[in-house]
Amino acid sequence: MIRQLSHIGIAVRDLDASIALFEKIFQPAAIHREVVPEQKVEVASFMVGNARLELIAPTAPDSPIARFLEQRGQGIHHLAFETDDLTTELGRIAEEGIQLINRTPSAGAHEMLIAFLHPKSTGGVLIELCQHTHRQQ
Amino acid sequence: MIRQLSHIGIAVRDLDASIALFEKIFQPAAIHREVVPEQKVEVASFMVGNARLELIAPTAPDSPIARFLEQRGQGIHHLAFETDDLTTELGRIAEEGIQLINRTPSAGAHEMLIAFLHPKSTGGVLIELCQHTHRQQ
Repeated sequence: MIRQLSHIGIAVRDLDASIALFEKIFQPAAIHREVVPEQKVEVASFMVGNARLELIAPTAPDSPIARFLEQRGQGIHHLAFETDDLTTELGRIAEEGIQLINRTPSAGAHEMLIAFLHPKSTGGVLIELCQHTHRQQ
Repeated sequence: MIRQLSHIGIAVRDLDASIALFEKIFQPAAIHREVVPEQKVEVASFMVGNARLELIAPTAPDSPIARFLEQRGQGIHHLAFETDDLTTELGRIAEEGIQLINRTPSAGAHEMLIAFLHPKSTGGVLIELCQHTHRQQ
């Protein structure tokens, strides 16, 4: 099952400028920056109470975020939700007739496995499902 | 200060159809429906863990949500955050140079006072600030 909101992803052109802007609005205590090579993005995330906002800037012209910025401009890009078992959840949702972008999980930020549902079958909302990875000892 | 996420607002054309869709994905325990005459919308909200998603459908052709649906289609409409003192927070944010849509709060769903910041000065993200109203005894 889907347990909780992981983060809200916001597409931005300039990460430094956007951090300065969102600091003015939300006054976060700390900001975590991370490059995610698999997604060709750099992210800056911070907490607002119990919710994490994640600013996402492209690191290459063929990044999915670069294409989003071209087509839609800056703004909310996706909602990410945590699940304990991503593969099972993707199977359940596909059986409900909802189209998946990723049938198999890939690596995301924060040591998460991630997969996206297709916004055409989720009311225009790009939904990411994610699962914490736990290293085997 | 801004304390926490209140809800994520999602613009939808057909509230019943959208409830059925989001029930398939998120399997919520309960859904709260409410007409908000001041905003010319009907909303259906449910919890995903500690986050509230709010589906918003227009109840009149001149509803702001109807205009959004015409221009952008269905999808994430706004992020709402709670503050203890909306008027003070609006003043602070305006002093930071951020443009407001509403300089004075109006009535929203869930017995909240609400006001919006202008997405042109918040990186394309429509941000609602809200404050619980407390009836005087």
